[in-house]
Amino acid sequence: MALPLQDKLAIGIDIGGTSTKIGIVDSEGDIKFRTELSSTDNNSIEEFIDQLYDKLYPIIEQHGGNDLIHGIGIGAPNGNYYTGTIDYAPNLKWKGIIPLAFLINKRFNLPAILTNDANAAAVGEMIYGAAKGMKDFIMITLGTGVGSGIVANGQLIYGHDGFAGELGHTTIIPNGRFHPGTNMYGTLEVYASATGVRRTAIELIASSNEESLLRAIPEDKIDSKAVYDCAIKGDAIAKEVFRFTGEVLGKALANFVMFSSPEAIILFGGVTKAGDLIINPTREHMEANVLPIFRNKVKLIFSQLKEADAAILGASALVWGTEIK
Amino acid sequence: MALPLQDKLAIGIDIGGTSTKIGIVDSEGDIKFRTELSSTDNNSIEEFIDQLYDKLYPIIEQHGGNDLIHGIGIGAPNGNYYTGTIDYAPNLKWKGIIPLAFLINKRFNLPAILTNDANAAAVGEMIYGAAKGMKDFIMITLGTGVGSGIVANGQLIYGHDGFAGELGHTTIIPNGRFHPGTNMYGTLEVYASATGVRRTAIELIASSNEESLLRAIPEDKIDSKAVYDCAIKGDAIAKEVFRFTGEVLGKALANFVMFSSPEAIILFGGVTKAGDLIINPTREHMEANVLPIFRNKVKLIFSQLKEADAAILGASALVWGTEIK
Repeated sequence: MALPLQDKLAIGIDIGGTSTKIGIVDSEGDIKFRTELSSTDNNSIEEFIDQLYDKLYPIIEQHGGNDLIHGIGIGAPNGNYYTGTIDYAPNLKWKGIIPLAFLINKRFNLPAILTNDANAAAVGEMIYGAAKGMKDFIMITLGTGVGSGIVANGQLIYGHDGFAGELGHTTIIPNGRFHPGTNMYGTLEVYASATGVRRTAIELIASSNEESLLRAIPEDKIDSKAVYDCAIKGDAIAKEVFRFTGEVLGKALANFVMFSSPEAIILFGGVTKAGDLIINPTREHMEANVLPIFRNKVKLIFSQLKEADAAILGASALVWGTEIK
Repeated sequence: MALPLQDKLAIGIDIGGTSTKIGIVDSEGDIKFRTELSSTDNNSIEEFIDQLYDKLYPIIEQHGGNDLIHGIGIGAPNGNYYTGTIDYAPNLKWKGIIPLAFLINKRFNLPAILTNDANAAAVGEMIYGAAKGMKDFIMITLGTGVGSGIVANGQLIYGHDGFAGELGHTTIIPNGRFHPGTNMYGTLEVYASATGVRRTAIELIASSNEESLLRAIPEDKIDSKAVYDCAIKGDAIAKEVFRFTGEVLGKALANFVMFSSPEAIILFGGVTKAGDLIINPTREHMEANVLPIFRNKVKLIFSQLKEADAAILGASALVWGTEIK
């Protein structure tokens, strides 16, 4: 007899450039077991799958075997939901097109679903987090880069080819700052990522003579956290870094609101540690740049998933689809 | 016994500022009958509904009565799909919130579905036109204003409140041209609408001494059509008007592509009469401003619905939902 869905477990695998995080998660979002695997200590994707199997299969057995597992969800950079492939991920060891969902499905004899990490984060938020019960929201991840996952009518928007939701690469300031990774100018990512916060700090220090705690920090040590530490001590330039970042982000969010009219925009990732310093200017410029019919309606909130757990939870949540709510 | 859906008829009603167009449409998109009604020769919405009933009911009878009609679809400015209401439409006679779908449903005893005109156009294109069989596309209407309807996963995106798809009001050029209707700056509508084309023409004439056929036209007669007529005669300034319009539109479309990764973007409305003069620069700047993974994948095409029929077809198509494909 088939188990009710809420008694089953999901496996979440988050593949990053250096390490792969693995967790066994119940339908409430409790992580029952977690482990890790190097993403780089292998000579091929096949060897990586072998290592994954050797590590994970005994744990699946301990948790009641395949009958108890509803499926394996995988979040990976450049992961394509439709094809189950990782396509030309610049930060991963395996080059070209990697049919990861296929390989994992074959090896484990379990359903395997793959998407990119920002989409996985959005599904995680919808199943276990701040977007529980929402049918229309946008997830923005502000980390090394800026990722996004868009949910409308209760479904993730994948687009015709599986690549929808690249909001970090939309142009916000025409002819603005250059993005060396994409050769584009003035895109959201080049301002609102942790890398963007660092660049803004360096630019602001260089363009003024104002005193700042930031001047005491070697340039290669200036990052989003260092700027935050200075800002909470009252440093004017450090505060201006987040105000400016929020201004650009808020203007971008205004455009996104007029696209899909979400109930909420959920912010996640390192830059959100700046709290009110980033969210207040973001909200101000979002509200100032939408039509009146959208004003004061969109919740701008932080993720409710713990950062250490979010990647595993998001990947595992893919398995539940929209069946559990 | 219930008739098969393909043997039933839909009523499409398009409510405009001056006139209301009405048609009876079969499931193939053939308009079996059409008529019109003034939107302004009435003292109240109730009187308008009475006039509509007196005009339309005899025609429904002639076409086999209510049993043959699958429903009434209505396109209207500021029409809200969820509530069935027209909310504060600036160009309509009736002020405030008008529960139009409710009133029509009560009077005709037929299902009534309402949405805004651009969303209706998108559904019309999906059921009868250029987007037949597509699950992911964006419809952009370039008329007096710029409207949009976004389809993802085979469904129109309405957003949490029914107001999604206001792409004409997204900011493309920060601190750009002022929009007197919205008090916003640099939004798509203020450049890519027919009104925007006219403004660009007037600005270009004023800012140069170059000879132009446009100079012979009184300023109040300069419109999108006049600019087109000059452009096909080879007038350099007139051609530049469309090139510039296409540049702004193309940059906007690039951002939209990175949002929902549509299979196609379908352009509709008066400005599209400029044909290659507008679509070539639009395509060029769209392609130049997307990430490589989106390049040369999105079809940029014109609507396949006749402009005179499109509003009725779009409204009627709401009735079929996604049942007929």
